[in-house]
Amino acid sequence: MYNEQGDFTVQVCFSPLSWPLFDMGNSVVIVADIFRASTAICTAIHHGVAAIIPVETIEESEQWKARGYISAGERDGKTLACADFGNSPFNFMAEHLRGKTIVMNTTNGTRAINMAASKNPLVLVGSFINLSAVCAYALQYKKNIIILCAGWKDRFSMEDTLFAGAAAEEIIKTGKGAYHTVCDSAIASIDLWQMAKHDPVLYIEKAAHRHRLKRLGLDDVIAYSLTLNQVASVPVWNNDRLVDSKAL
Amino acid sequence: MYNEQGDFTVQVCFSPLSWPLFDMGNSVVIVADIFRASTAICTAIHHGVAAIIPVETIEESEQWKARGYISAGERDGKTLACADFGNSPFNFMAEHLRGKTIVMNTTNGTRAINMAASKNPLVLVGSFINLSAVCAYALQYKKNIIILCAGWKDRFSMEDTLFAGAAAEEIIKTGKGAYHTVCDSAIASIDLWQMAKHDPVLYIEKAAHRHRLKRLGLDDVIAYSLTLNQVASVPVWNNDRLVDSKAL
Repeated sequence: MYNEQGDFTVQVCFSPLSWPLFDMGNSVVIVADIFRASTAICTAIHHGVAAIIPVETIEESEQWKARGYISAGERDGKTLACADFGNSPFNFMAEHLRGKTIVMNTTNGTRAINMAASKNPLVLVGSFINLSAVCAYALQYKKNIIILCAGWKDRFSMEDTLFAGAAAEEIIKTGKGAYHTVCDSAIASIDLWQMAKHDPVLYIEKAAHRHRLKRLGLDDVIAYSLTLNQVASVPVWNNDRLVDSKAL
Repeated sequence: MYNEQGDFTVQVCFSPLSWPLFDMGNSVVIVADIFRASTAICTAIHHGVAAIIPVETIEESEQWKARGYISAGERDGKTLACADFGNSPFNFMAEHLRGKTIVMNTTNGTRAINMAASKNPLVLVGSFINLSAVCAYALQYKKNIIILCAGWKDRFSMEDTLFAGAAAEEIIKTGKGAYHTVCDSAIASIDLWQMAKHDPVLYIEKAAHRHRLKRLGLDDVIAYSLTLNQVASVPVWNNDRLVDSKAL
């Protein structure tokens, strides 16, 4: 598991707050916001949505909406007044959304994506539902890989960390010896994933955000969001939006 | 393990960088910098050193030294030119240091202590060697407890996190139902400690800083620093220095 000269590294950044410590530029970055932006984006792209434009402020959502765009968004679990629907992954499966571009209002996820994209050539959206696909896509570039957890308002988040552990493990295993890590946060993520992998839904019972979702009546997405490899799509950052890697 | 109304919380902050998210003031803070400031300070106080004055800059060390103080300090593993000895815990056991005040130059630890002390009434130094003592001392105040990991240059550090998990577990177990947590970083720390507790030295083989110490030939302290409950002393912040809680 240790890095050796000439190899590529896989690192895990637990929070956007720590990003300046990790960001050397020129890495492949996988952004994860499991509950719920990154799972929703992977779901949307898999179901044929043409692009997701992630925005951070309500004003931005309103401006895009006024220009005729479909708008999704929540604030603290409630659908925004200007939005057509909330950010549950289940909302992005509808037939009438195929080929459409959707504006998605998400605080943690959007900020993380923008931070990653400012210096790095390739920013991907990762979730449990596209785990193997996003790792395989990242590996082909033969660059250092950083998994950036969007977290919860800059705090460490268990579900994003478990994804980071699953992804780091997969990258090291399938990277044919090219990927190693000496990053303590990657090692911790991999070890936490070993404890969780046999029943992630049971394990996440302990986590803070899961309780937040339950309180809000939004916990129907938990099992879906923690089930591995349901889709093969990889959303990739392209200018101001996320599109299917196959569309590039 | 979940918080309920009226209970006190135990939280874990992985890095000084995240401290503003945790610091509500009025908590008991346990600062941990296992390799090596907090283990050295607990060793010193246990062996009868009267006080440790932690300083951050070389200029401060030089000024105290010029005033006749004994000076300990390292930078990147090398003893400072102005210091009488380095920061290995073994250096603080000598008979001639009993009753003396020692200036200790430590970057991560000093900064963490100063941050904690700026708003909170009680700042304690924790390490594996005084684990039960520091937890028991913290519990008697019936306040929320935050374990602040000094980390490595603002990064997540495995050994500090394992200590945080051991301490959070002990606080919850011995707190007689008064302490709970909904903090994901506390839960992660506790779970990582479950993986490590049966053989912390073997577990820490994976961690980055352990390799850093080994490269520098400073790894003789690892087994000592990871052995629980060797001393009953609790260093407490008092004005500008750390003293034995029994001396307050």
